[in-house]
Amino acid sequence: MNLILIKESDFTAENLVEISDFRFEHIKNVLKAQNGATLKIGLVNGKIGTGNIISVSGNNAIVETAFDRNPPAKNPATLFCALPRPKVFRRVLLNAVCFGVKEIHFFQAFKVEKSYWQSPFLSPDSIDKTVENALMQAIDTVSPQIYFHKSFKIFVEDVFAPKAQEFPCTAFHPTDGIKKTSPPLDATGAKHGFVIGPEGGFTDYEIDMFLKNNAQSASLGERILRVEQAVCAVLSSGYSGN
Amino acid sequence: MNLILIKESDFTAENLVEISDFRFEHIKNVLKAQNGATLKIGLVNGKIGTGNIISVSGNNAIVETAFDRNPPAKNPATLFCALPRPKVFRRVLLNAVCFGVKEIHFFQAFKVEKSYWQSPFLSPDSIDKTVENALMQAIDTVSPQIYFHKSFKIFVEDVFAPKAQEFPCTAFHPTDGIKKTSPPLDATGAKHGFVIGPEGGFTDYEIDMFLKNNAQSASLGERILRVEQAVCAVLSSGYSGN
Repeated sequence: MNLILIKESDFTAENLVEISDFRFEHIKNVLKAQNGATLKIGLVNGKIGTGNIISVSGNNAIVETAFDRNPPAKNPATLFCALPRPKVFRRVLLNAVCFGVKEIHFFQAFKVEKSYWQSPFLSPDSIDKTVENALMQAIDTVSPQIYFHKSFKIFVEDVFAPKAQEFPCTAFHPTDGIKKTSPPLDATGAKHGFVIGPEGGFTDYEIDMFLKNNAQSASLGERILRVEQAVCAVLSSGYSGN
Repeated sequence: MNLILIKESDFTAENLVEISDFRFEHIKNVLKAQNGATLKIGLVNGKIGTGNIISVSGNNAIVETAFDRNPPAKNPATLFCALPRPKVFRRVLLNAVCFGVKEIHFFQAFKVEKSYWQSPFLSPDSIDKTVENALMQAIDTVSPQIYFHKSFKIFVEDVFAPKAQEFPCTAFHPTDGIKKTSPPLDATGAKHGFVIGPEGGFTDYEIDMFLKNNAQSASLGERILRVEQAVCAVLSSGYSGN
């Protein structure tokens, strides 16, 4: 937790917040912060700044807030990812938010087991918690837009295709025997879409659908990466980090 | 498991192996492979090729082997990583091996808790298992060299410094207020060393030591990545994937 996220509901007066949940536990037990110490704080969907600890009691901390800077710029990438199995879904979401993606689409594909859609990790509460953790890791305040698409065809034709007309989108597809990898991005920080398939890859029909709907395809090389590794690889490739 | 690793001890005759451990479970229960099916196989530290299933019984599989191709080229990066906490250590090792790193150094730093060195995840058996899993994920056969250094000073002066004279080495250090990120690598696929610090970062003394011993420093940007994310980000950056 490199930043404490502050919500509107934490304010007890202008520039004064009372924190009593897991953030308080972190302040008290991990940071071992005492009166007068300063914290890096950020207002949900707002600026980042400095918190000055006024008091730490047995069950809450009173912090004076000053927000003076914008959070880091968002990553110019849009992530399209076949819904991974639940544990991997959480890691993919965490990675995407840490790398600053502002728009994430999860979609059904042939090799996505239907049961994945029933996972409690997909509940709004669980997603909020994962996103919050990632923002506090990455010193960011702005939650991404997250979309779920249970029909592959409708997703590709109605959602993906118009976006892939607006900015270049690359579908990554491990192709047996391919030796040379297309670099995933030109590293200029321009808007780009990345499509990551399920474990086991896309079917021929699926990759054809992406190609017919304005995507280009590329391979990440002979090595088959795990979904969460592929997400880091493509998101970091063009990420200017400023 | 995108490749079944074959060991010398599996051979019962020339070009014939008997598999009866977790790989057999995978062949039987996940791949549901039957007589006559083919498998992607690789000889430990050797070539990759095709296995032809002769028989699958209740407790083993007999496979005819043909090895005809070299495994993917190794990543030109050398990874230097402050020893992470045990769960993260396993993920870092997995990521590094999946990205094809052939030399990994874990070292002590001020913010590395001494207890991390006692973790069972650092036992040779546990490491072998993690490496094996990663190789089978990444369709590789060649295990990396893994080194552990319990003294920071001896590591930097006696191990790191000579390597950083041989090829460029970059120590990543999150610096508050830095807006611009140096690109971690020139993407030419040239040999390069990457130094990743502990959670909480290097101390001033530590980063100075790296700089005094031939390293350059760079930031991955304002966002603070988790150790395992940073490893993916730097390893994928210059990775040609061929």
